Amino acid sequence: MPVVRRHLGQEPLPAHIWEAAISSRHIPEEGRTAAQREALATAERLAAELQRATSAVLAMPLYNFGVSQHAKTWIDLAIAGTPQGIRLLEGTPTVLVTTRGGAYGPGTPRAGWDHNIDYLRRILVDIWGADLTVVEREFTLVGVNPALDEFTEMAAIMHKTAEEAAGEAGRALATRYAA
Amino acid sequence: MPVVRRHLGQEPLPAHIWEAAISSRHIPEEGRTAAQREALATAERLAAELQRATSAVLAMPLYNFGVSQHAKTWIDLAIAGTPQGIRLLEGTPTVLVTTRGGAYGPGTPRAGWDHNIDYLRRILVDIWGADLTVVEREFTLVGVNPALDEFTEMAAIMHKTAEEAAGEAGRALATRYAA
Repeated sequence: MPVVRRHLGQEPLPAHIWEAAISSRHIPEEGRTAAQREALATAERLAAELQRATSAVLAMPLYNFGVSQHAKTWIDLAIAGTPQGIRLLEGTPTVLVTTRGGAYGPGTPRAGWDHNIDYLRRILVDIWGADLTVVEREFTLVGVNPALDEFTEMAAIMHKTAEEAAGEAGRALATRYAA
Repeated sequence: MPVVRRHLGQEPLPAHIWEAAISSRHIPEEGRTAAQREALATAERLAAELQRATSAVLAMPLYNFGVSQHAKTWIDLAIAGTPQGIRLLEGTPTVLVTTRGGAYGPGTPRAGWDHNIDYLRRILVDIWGADLTVVEREFTLVGVNPALDEFTEMAAIMHKTAEEAAGEAGRALATRYAA
């Protein structure tokens, strides 16, 4: 089965594509510049990758308390390349793996500071229709930032729990294909 | 008084700067590539612009229910270029003007779908320390999308209210400088 991989962080989508893709949708095909055609083709390719997928696994961290710039650029382009009325991941089994350097649960000093996960759910589920499983791991900065050393044990438990959840999500996908 | 303008949408910051800027902070200066030096210099320039500002006016729309990709790239770079322990807009009078195509207030079908404004407040106020005034305008798609024609009157009121709020915010800034 072909697998399409994109590393949005290491090979980021260029920042100028969005404007060219959006503007070219309002111009008859013969009037578009080469840059506009190329931008729209990239946007349509991103949308088609999602639409054709039988399953999707996305890894998108919290960054600076929000959505990663690379993830947002990808989302905007995929939406710009979507045919009218189509939900790109309608019913598609989708696993979103997300990480946070600190802890953001209820009662923590940073409760409410995760502005990433609710947005990603909004796009993946409400806009694209994904059948979504979320695997979350917090405290990834424990062991990196000495100020967090007191949370070593808690972070180890979170790590183990996330690995188990990821394994379970992977087995669930595999079971679907075996069926 | 010199005014620094940046149009993040029309002249977007390149997508590859962030990785180069972040990685170069972990490399001694003499070991950095030209691309890394340049990226870090850009990030530091963005941070310095904010730190030196006596006031700031930001226009950042809701886009695809979230933060604009260009705004997030700018925020990430400014943070990457910030000296340790500095809050870039500490006490700086800052006006954030934001627009939304639809309406997202309590009771509307899209209540809770604005994933932009809370994040921008988080960065501007909680991280950067700005003395923030927010000017919001909704229903900018009324008159563009015929499906919203029934809201023409409401949109006109929102437009007028936002213009008045923007005028008041501008006069408040002017008064500070006159003092």
